[in-house]
Amino acid sequence: MYINNKHYRTIWPDPRCQYVEVIDQTVLPFRFAVVKVQSLAMMVDTIKTMQVRGAPLIGAAAAYGMALAMSADDSDISLTTAAELLIAARPTAVNLSWAVSRMVNILKPLHPLKRNLAAWKQAANIAEEDVKQNQAIGQHGLALIKEAYDGSPFNILTHCNAGWLATVDYGTALSPIYAAHDAGMDIHVWVDETRPRNQGASLTAWGLAQHGVPHTVISDNAGGHLMQKKQVDMVIVGADRVTADGDVCNKIGTYLKAIAAKDNDVPFYAAVPSPTIDWNISADEIKIENRHEDEVLYMAGLNQDNQSAVFRVVAEGSTALNPAFDVSPARLVSGIITERGVFPPSFLRHLETQLIKSDVG
Amino acid sequence: MYINNKHYRTIWPDPRCQYVEVIDQTVLPFRFAVVKVQSLAMMVDTIKTMQVRGAPLIGAAAAYGMALAMSADDSDISLTTAAELLIAARPTAVNLSWAVSRMVNILKPLHPLKRNLAAWKQAANIAEEDVKQNQAIGQHGLALIKEAYDGSPFNILTHCNAGWLATVDYGTALSPIYAAHDAGMDIHVWVDETRPRNQGASLTAWGLAQHGVPHTVISDNAGGHLMQKKQVDMVIVGADRVTADGDVCNKIGTYLKAIAAKDNDVPFYAAVPSPTIDWNISADEIKIENRHEDEVLYMAGLNQDNQSAVFRVVAEGSTALNPAFDVSPARLVSGIITERGVFPPSFLRHLETQLIKSDVG
Repeated sequence: MYINNKHYRTIWPDPRCQYVEVIDQTVLPFRFAVVKVQSLAMMVDTIKTMQVRGAPLIGAAAAYGMALAMSADDSDISLTTAAELLIAARPTAVNLSWAVSRMVNILKPLHPLKRNLAAWKQAANIAEEDVKQNQAIGQHGLALIKEAYDGSPFNILTHCNAGWLATVDYGTALSPIYAAHDAGMDIHVWVDETRPRNQGASLTAWGLAQHGVPHTVISDNAGGHLMQKKQVDMVIVGADRVTADGDVCNKIGTYLKAIAAKDNDVPFYAAVPSPTIDWNISADEIKIENRHEDEVLYMAGLNQDNQSAVFRVVAEGSTALNPAFDVSPARLVSGIITERGVFPPSFLRHLETQLIKSDVG
Repeated sequence: MYINNKHYRTIWPDPRCQYVEVIDQTVLPFRFAVVKVQSLAMMVDTIKTMQVRGAPLIGAAAAYGMALAMSADDSDISLTTAAELLIAARPTAVNLSWAVSRMVNILKPLHPLKRNLAAWKQAANIAEEDVKQNQAIGQHGLALIKEAYDGSPFNILTHCNAGWLATVDYGTALSPIYAAHDAGMDIHVWVDETRPRNQGASLTAWGLAQHGVPHTVISDNAGGHLMQKKQVDMVIVGADRVTADGDVCNKIGTYLKAIAAKDNDVPFYAAVPSPTIDWNISADEIKIENRHEDEVLYMAGLNQDNQSAVFRVVAEGSTALNPAFDVSPARLVSGIITERGVFPPSFLRHLETQLIKSDVG
């Protein structure tokens, strides 16, 4: 996507495979900085400190971490140690261990002298696959928007950040939006602030602004009212997990937008790569993590000296509860946008059979 | 209500009628300060700068402003000027002009020498009536809670601040909560942060903490999930306006909680003094004010030096829309709690007839 009229991905290798560069997401949206990652240790640190974040991006970063390790030392012990260090950097990130395992499976059988080049090539493949997957989601979502578009401004509401910053490029929920904007359609995005961590007001708004997509930030409270007033034509969100029944687990507050969309006949879509569909869990079984109360009690922003700072926004003497996700039941979901097409929630189980068949075939 | 174990109202006169004291609401929740208001000019300033806020409280403050004016100068010209200055302090506040008119109607016919004493007496009446009205709301709401209470912790969710700080004492939506807590019931309150102005996280949480009512602040996004998980037994909100059909106009975001309550069979009540019912307007006719975008783009808090400060929370380059209220349709409302009893929305029109009859009788 574009930043100041220049095309960027969130991660890219030096052409001579000496180092990797990433956008430092800890200083966004108030500052734009690129970090040069020159070693395995630096990549582990980059993942730990969340300079890179978002499941697909973490996977690509870990793959490049393996490549940096092979450049320095292509021995078996180096391979094993690098894999362990990277997996431990963010223990709960599924994409991270998936990407590391894939690298190890390819590199281990090779003669050490062949590992360095193979590692850089394979890391590039992992990054490229993510880009292709998100582009496909964008094209399937674009078709949906085209069906509903009548030439007048088309208003899409989104919650949290499922933009390109969480991926290598394009994003998931925002990929159809970028595709429609780039196709010359008159798209406007309502960006939910997304308390408590403000990923909408910071990352989503910043990304849309950089790419030149018209958008307006709203408090999380405003979306229902805008739907009542016919100011929302479609809702597109990402998801952390989708059940085989089509229930959508996503950032806290998504459920409130899903019921408001239903109450006002606004189509509600979740855009996810198909690996995000969890075939073995029901909505009731999804355990919702309660994150630290400080995320509610404090807020990050820019102080009057234009310095990033953390502020307390709740009086002393009160505590907070901070559930991080909620589940929007399938009955509220118009469709799931995947890289393989758009499916009604009830159709997902058929997709499972298809997927298994094609894998076996 | 109690602050540090001492009983306070939001406004009270010096026993010798020399001055009036008010709680300075501009420095809450991070500091508690009482302002001594010694003249009409000071009272006008107190209202303008929102050191006192909330419709019923502004009415009482204006009445005491008239009394301060009469202490200084009991002439006809002083009476007229004071009324004009006070009404101009917050032009859209209905309670303000109502209270000032009531003072003028009583004081104007009197001999100037009798005006000073009469003014202080009448201002005290206006304040006392507000307290009685809110106490009655509390008792009717308490009866509702008692019906549903089974001895285990009873969780009530509220949005924005309809607490005692907006009134002379007790508040509206929070009055039943204080009544239930004071009656020894095991009450716990989920306090919606209430972006963009955070009246929940600041005023509601602070007031509950001071009075010792167990409560937890949540982001506005969390309430729907808590209802899905059976963690909410009742929703009680205030209202800025209720239509004769029982539609509830209240702080932005209330509608999202109303549909979530409906979706999860949680009773949803609005608590209002009966003058808040507007007999002459339909939901569609209510004009929703868009307030300044800076309320979304910036946020007030306490910086690391424990100083109150304003900080930017949205990246430069993005704008915001800030609708201040929304309307929850009557079909989502279980009942309206008034000082005259609890009524299903569809019953309000009967109440109108009753009210007109009793006025004529």
